[in-house]
Amino acid sequence: MPAQEDFAIKTLGPCTRPSPLSRLHDVGFVEDDARILYQHKCGAGAADWGGLCFEEAGPRASIYFDPAKTTAAVVTCGGLSPGLNNVIRSVYCELAYNYLVPRVLGVRNGYMGLNPDSGLRMVELTPAFVDNIHYLGGTVLGSSRGSQEVGVIVDTLVRDEIDILFCVGGDGTQRGAAAISDEVERRGLKKAVVGIPKTIDNDLHYVYKSFGYDTALEKAEEVLRGAHVEARCAPNGIGLVKLMGRNAGFIAAGAALASQDANFVLIPEIPFRLEGEDGFLTELERRVLSKGHALVVVAEGAGQDLFTPSDTRRDASGNVLHDDIGILIRDHCHAHFKDRGIAINLKYIDPSYYIRSTPANAGDRILSDQMARMAVHAAMAGKTDTLIGYWHNELVHVPIRTAIAEKRQLDLTSDLWTAVMRSTGQPVWRV
Amino acid sequence: MPAQEDFAIKTLGPCTRPSPLSRLHDVGFVEDDARILYQHKCGAGAADWGGLCFEEAGPRASIYFDPAKTTAAVVTCGGLSPGLNNVIRSVYCELAYNYLVPRVLGVRNGYMGLNPDSGLRMVELTPAFVDNIHYLGGTVLGSSRGSQEVGVIVDTLVRDEIDILFCVGGDGTQRGAAAISDEVERRGLKKAVVGIPKTIDNDLHYVYKSFGYDTALEKAEEVLRGAHVEARCAPNGIGLVKLMGRNAGFIAAGAALASQDANFVLIPEIPFRLEGEDGFLTELERRVLSKGHALVVVAEGAGQDLFTPSDTRRDASGNVLHDDIGILIRDHCHAHFKDRGIAINLKYIDPSYYIRSTPANAGDRILSDQMARMAVHAAMAGKTDTLIGYWHNELVHVPIRTAIAEKRQLDLTSDLWTAVMRSTGQPVWRV
Amino acid sequence: MPAQEDFAIKTLGPCTRPSPLSRLHDVGFVEDDARILYQHKCGAGAADWGGLCFEEAGPRASIYFDPAKTTAAVVTCGGLSPGLNNVIRSVYCELAYNYLVPRVLGVRNGYMGLNPDSGLRMVELTPAFVDNIHYLGGTVLGSSRGSQEVGVIVDTLVRDEIDILFCVGGDGTQRGAAAISDEVERRGLKKAVVGIPKTIDNDLHYVYKSFGYDTALEKAEEVLRGAHVEARCAPNGIGLVKLMGRNAGFIAAGAALASQDANFVLIPEIPFRLEGEDGFLTELERRVLSKGHALVVVAEGAGQDLFTPSDTRRDASGNVLHDDIGILIRDHCHAHFKDRGIAINLKYIDPSYYIRSTPANAGDRILSDQMARMAVHAAMAGKTDTLIGYWHNELVHVPIRTAIAEKRQLDLTSDLWTAVMRSTGQPVWRV
Amino acid sequence: MPAQEDFAIKTLGPCTRPSPLSRLHDVGFVEDDARILYQHKCGAGAADWGGLCFEEAGPRASIYFDPAKTTAAVVTCGGLSPGLNNVIRSVYCELAYNYLVPRVLGVRNGYMGLNPDSGLRMVELTPAFVDNIHYLGGTVLGSSRGSQEVGVIVDTLVRDEIDILFCVGGDGTQRGAAAISDEVERRGLKKAVVGIPKTIDNDLHYVYKSFGYDTALEKAEEVLRGAHVEARCAPNGIGLVKLMGRNAGFIAAGAALASQDANFVLIPEIPFRLEGEDGFLTELERRVLSKGHALVVVAEGAGQDLFTPSDTRRDASGNVLHDDIGILIRDHCHAHFKDRGIAINLKYIDPSYYIRSTPANAGDRILSDQMARMAVHAAMAGKTDTLIGYWHNELVHVPIRTAIAEKRQLDLTSDLWTAVMRSTGQPVWRV
Repeated sequence: MPAQEDFAIKTLGPCTRPSPLSRLHDVGFVEDDARILYQHKCGAGAADWGGLCFEEAGPRASIYFDPAKTTAAVVTCGGLSPGLNNVIRSVYCELAYNYLVPRVLGVRNGYMGLNPDSGLRMVELTPAFVDNIHYLGGTVLGSSRGSQEVGVIVDTLVRDEIDILFCVGGDGTQRGAAAISDEVERRGLKKAVVGIPKTIDNDLHYVYKSFGYDTALEKAEEVLRGAHVEARCAPNGIGLVKLMGRNAGFIAAGAALASQDANFVLIPEIPFRLEGEDGFLTELERRVLSKGHALVVVAEGAGQDLFTPSDTRRDASGNVLHDDIGILIRDHCHAHFKDRGIAINLKYIDPSYYIRSTPANAGDRILSDQMARMAVHAAMAGKTDTLIGYWHNELVHVPIRTAIAEKRQLDLTSDLWTAVMRSTGQPVWRV
Repeated sequence: MPAQEDFAIKTLGPCTRPSPLSRLHDVGFVEDDARILYQHKCGAGAADWGGLCFEEAGPRASIYFDPAKTTAAVVTCGGLSPGLNNVIRSVYCELAYNYLVPRVLGVRNGYMGLNPDSGLRMVELTPAFVDNIHYLGGTVLGSSRGSQEVGVIVDTLVRDEIDILFCVGGDGTQRGAAAISDEVERRGLKKAVVGIPKTIDNDLHYVYKSFGYDTALEKAEEVLRGAHVEARCAPNGIGLVKLMGRNAGFIAAGAALASQDANFVLIPEIPFRLEGEDGFLTELERRVLSKGHALVVVAEGAGQDLFTPSDTRRDASGNVLHDDIGILIRDHCHAHFKDRGIAINLKYIDPSYYIRSTPANAGDRILSDQMARMAVHAAMAGKTDTLIGYWHNELVHVPIRTAIAEKRQLDLTSDLWTAVMRSTGQPVWRV
Repeated sequence: MPAQEDFAIKTLGPCTRPSPLSRLHDVGFVEDDARILYQHKCGAGAADWGGLCFEEAGPRASIYFDPAKTTAAVVTCGGLSPGLNNVIRSVYCELAYNYLVPRVLGVRNGYMGLNPDSGLRMVELTPAFVDNIHYLGGTVLGSSRGSQEVGVIVDTLVRDEIDILFCVGGDGTQRGAAAISDEVERRGLKKAVVGIPKTIDNDLHYVYKSFGYDTALEKAEEVLRGAHVEARCAPNGIGLVKLMGRNAGFIAAGAALASQDANFVLIPEIPFRLEGEDGFLTELERRVLSKGHALVVVAEGAGQDLFTPSDTRRDASGNVLHDDIGILIRDHCHAHFKDRGIAINLKYIDPSYYIRSTPANAGDRILSDQMARMAVHAAMAGKTDTLIGYWHNELVHVPIRTAIAEKRQLDLTSDLWTAVMRSTGQPVWRV
Repeated sequence: MPAQEDFAIKTLGPCTRPSPLSRLHDVGFVEDDARILYQHKCGAGAADWGGLCFEEAGPRASIYFDPAKTTAAVVTCGGLSPGLNNVIRSVYCELAYNYLVPRVLGVRNGYMGLNPDSGLRMVELTPAFVDNIHYLGGTVLGSSRGSQEVGVIVDTLVRDEIDILFCVGGDGTQRGAAAISDEVERRGLKKAVVGIPKTIDNDLHYVYKSFGYDTALEKAEEVLRGAHVEARCAPNGIGLVKLMGRNAGFIAAGAALASQDANFVLIPEIPFRLEGEDGFLTELERRVLSKGHALVVVAEGAGQDLFTPSDTRRDASGNVLHDDIGILIRDHCHAHFKDRGIAINLKYIDPSYYIRSTPANAGDRILSDQMARMAVHAAMAGKTDTLIGYWHNELVHVPIRTAIAEKRQLDLTSDLWTAVMRSTGQPVWRV
């Protein structure tokens, strides 16, 4: 239950300098007390949140840092997501062309590049460096998973005279950003740490859609289309596609809805049984026997309780490593239908890395540009420990600590999920 | 200035039947008094709209029509937009599979198909008919521009026992829908008329984004990319692209922002001069001489005051036919640089129909599905003269009459437009 | 070593009817003794094949069948390949519109649909049925693997009065077609069996490129691009992509060449060792340590000798089922680098079904159209046991039996493979 | 009528050095007397060309230039074509990585960059420079139209110690290359001039397919698809698309065949009348009245005799500037149907620059790589005045002079054109 103090934004100090943006054009400065309501519903069923609200993002007429004496750095961490290069480029362009900041550094390979032991050197961004990068997938700065000792990172910021650090990444990355911000504050430094949310799974709180998600749907839908074609072209054809989504089914649900051809969508939010009268395999069998084909979408984080318990494994970023639900379902399908003497044609597709590495589509190019520029505005105004959030179609400031307090999941009464239920016709699982 | 009565939705009568959706699953029914606030900003600069709000769209637990005795029809009108087939398919699927409505008709070639004189016969939609249409551009029902005599249309509704008419189209189409709804009411009939907004230009009020717009940006951005490549590869290269947007610059602005390579974006909302010190051609010359290339985006409705007055021409739908600003600028460019003895390489591209006819991308497939299903829910609940609107990320009900009262234009203080100004660096035109 | 008699085409009898094509236009009839030379090289290193030649494909001025009394059927078998629907459509259009054949049947789900026990019924092709199918992946007729009893199939041809059977498929399918042709001849029937080669792997003899191959390269290259991006964005990143190619490395080689970013291409034609000084893993380690990233492409049929012997498994079509070389290499990579204490980031992608199910690109649409129409010309001229071959850029007739005598593999001295060696810089493996 | 001496390749001198390629792997050296037969047909209707043959392209075991002391330069001229960056990259990679040539220059903006008066400076190609350029459309070196004084160009080659010049371009560019080669020879210099054919129109002799053509078909087919959708969705809809092809209808024919939806394809090779009983407009009217829609493809060079005579205009490269046949047909259509009182919906699309600027598809990436590497092999072996040709699927050496002696046009008895006639059903025009 958020309260207003959870949305209070930290600042490094008063904004006493006029923004250099004012020279440019009728720029649409946003007042610093402009707010976006948390609750935009009323009437039956709408909780009353009083005046709870977020700080609105946008360029401020007065800023904290002196552009001519400011050095900024940008770091991209974690798994790839379409739009990373667009963020890097727009951070640079807004700083260099509009705020006239003379020095913008790119950190190599995530937080690792802020640790001198890595041997990695920062690159100074230039117009030539960013020239065509918005057309390319991945991140030209490289990425990595895992954290680094926070004291070492702040030492680097001090030594390289970095005033602003933009941390582009998901949950783990923002956790790191919050720690850096804390250490900066502890040492009494005046450095801004601003987070730009990168979550292809779309599971960061207060960011209803992050860049990369739309592109992921685009590519995932293509894969579903292929799986559907495969399923329809073979007797008792089953297309089984595992999509991203460790904690939340947003990609599975969105791609299924875009496809309109999916018959089952299995997500982390909804437990299900494989066997038994109400189990998934029985429903799948019904579908295959009646229609001759089926398309199944499973999010990577679905059905984790179906595995026999084992020690929890984690990757370098601390994310829980899941057992592979796609493989589990594939194997159980084969066994189930073999038991019943039904010949099936099952095609299993796991497109994860292919999707993550594609360039951003137009919508994500716009969103990553906007988030990047808003992050620059926030930083130049001296805001810190701040993440660019996205709420009711407006970009807002969210304290990083608040954003990472818990993971976002699909609301099962949302239009998105009820539409998935209606377009697939899948049953409500009983466990 | 809208008032609450402008947002009041008409209904045919009380909803006394339980929705057949309740058999399906945990369906997420929306209370009929659920509302979405008009204003979701507060603090400095945010106007106070009190509790002004829209009715929230969604399935109702009780409905007006008896599904087993209901006939619905869908008509697609006006210019093509990506997503039309998706709307047709989802209207059909929601009615047939979820509400179990036995008869859904497709009207051929827009309102023309509701006039018996056209010789066109309605087609009865079936699973086979809609099977693969969501992968195709255009509309399988055909379209047409222009209106038909409203009495004739209502006669057809009566004769063919059509209880619900879904009108998919833009401004002109919705104007027609409102007239049909009036005539239905005048005759005391119990027929629902529900509008589904189709506006690739994105210029319908209370619909901040319609299906087709995202796809249009995707394709328009590809064209801008090509024009930028052409411009950079030739000495003094100029890429000039005319994009859609008769009254509003949404496509031009969005595509330019997605591109990040545009230098000038000319839109209907902002007048400009061609010649003179502050004129567009002078600025273009500066850019070309300093950088060697330029990319210019012009919305089709921009700069209409630059033409010498002539009688206003209109197309069959009553839209004002514009003189061709793309050709005008192209020709003035050639003349301007020739006068100054500067050899240029200007490439002009007008991709309009290519963009309009493409299939919907994933985002638009989801949006058209949602709008279509919401329209079905509204109609089954007996709402009429109602358009599916889109406000702060929520689908809402808007009286058609209110929606068409005036055209929507780009807010020049919006994040979208200020981002365009910052990414292009173009000047504020003085006229 | 082929001899001229291997290229002799069987015919059902003399062609005594003028072709209805002659009414159409200046049609480019091909003389029945037109030939394409087997050998088009001379000078050093070019074997002398004398006048060895193929029959040229094309419409004949005189034909064998009376179109008005002819029934044709088309069957699609085996795995999917882009272009199947285009073949179905062009077979139909050429027969119906140009030869005026009144009855063209589509067989459901491969040879299975010619066995009455399957319960599958043939569909009569119509303009509406084929209307938009050329835009869709897969085959609207469905497919299946495996053979059916040849006597049963010929019984079906007799009962349904099918005069011409077009068999669209690869090696196994053509083996079936040859058997059907034999049985037809044994019974003294006058029915033509014409094969249309479908081999995404490109491994049919006398067909230097089949439809689907180009599209497969297009999609495979996209996947390689993604894997390269993944590899470059992570420290010691390795992209490992398994592509199709059970017996031949054409897709792996072509995609790698299109990509230009691959560093290793492992194909069935070239054995390699994993371990040891000259082994693949040692070379991969060198590459990763010196450049920081690597992209590895492996054809599914490569390195089969690396598996410990087990009973040979076959799929329903009789194809040898391979152990999964992609998984093997992935696991050995992890072990190899772990042994050496080198942290790597390996991303494994297996896009097979995604590629197979895509719609044909423009080049494949043209090729499938041409092959389909040539097959119709051959059949109408009474040729049987005939496959449409492709040789030195010309479509030719090849006896099916000759085409399936052995599998085609990559010529390691060809421009394609030497270009792969030069663009990757990979070593010659010593085994 | 070509004779063997027309195919004789000039060389700068004997090849006395072993190729550095021999260190690499089993490289597939091509003997210098390897030949490809001009005629690969025999039997009825095949002209007897005796042993007339081309020199086969490929790496030679012995070369002329000493790689360590060689400087090469590459220049891209004329209109854009997909694949230019791929050619630049592969020329560089083959020279630098395989032949170990230390210095490869890129000429800016076509031949203009070889004239010091332009102020343009050559760029030294590096791995960083070419890193990602194969993913981008256009040419990173820039291009220009028009010729430069040949003496000035050779002066530049001398001053900058350029030993090899690769000229990437079409007819006009190769004319320039031939002149440079002549001047080099006249001065007794030992410099190789090798042409790489770039002709999106596919109209260079002895190059049956150049890079860019396949990509152009891909994009052109998409545009035709859109125009077809537009035509089908409106009453009496007519889609009219102008495609590239000044002298030859290859793109129009190929795109129409890929589309299968075109009804008329007008090309430069076939004159037609607009009006009269057998005129195009009458046939179009028949089609529209019977089917309700039509798709018309017109090559830009078609119907040039329909314009009233005027002075021939030429562009900077000397290409004849055509009056715009697309506009002419559009306007005559409107007038024709208006005269007859038939309301039509005509949508005209001219996608030229959009197509030219796209990145190469997989097939063209392979072809441009192959042509580039073959050009390097030819040059290193001291061949000059040589163009990389493409004949019966083999890359060959053709004297530039021979290649540009006349323009290539569509063979109206070819499989390509007869397939277009059969798939469209269009009549043979009588003039």
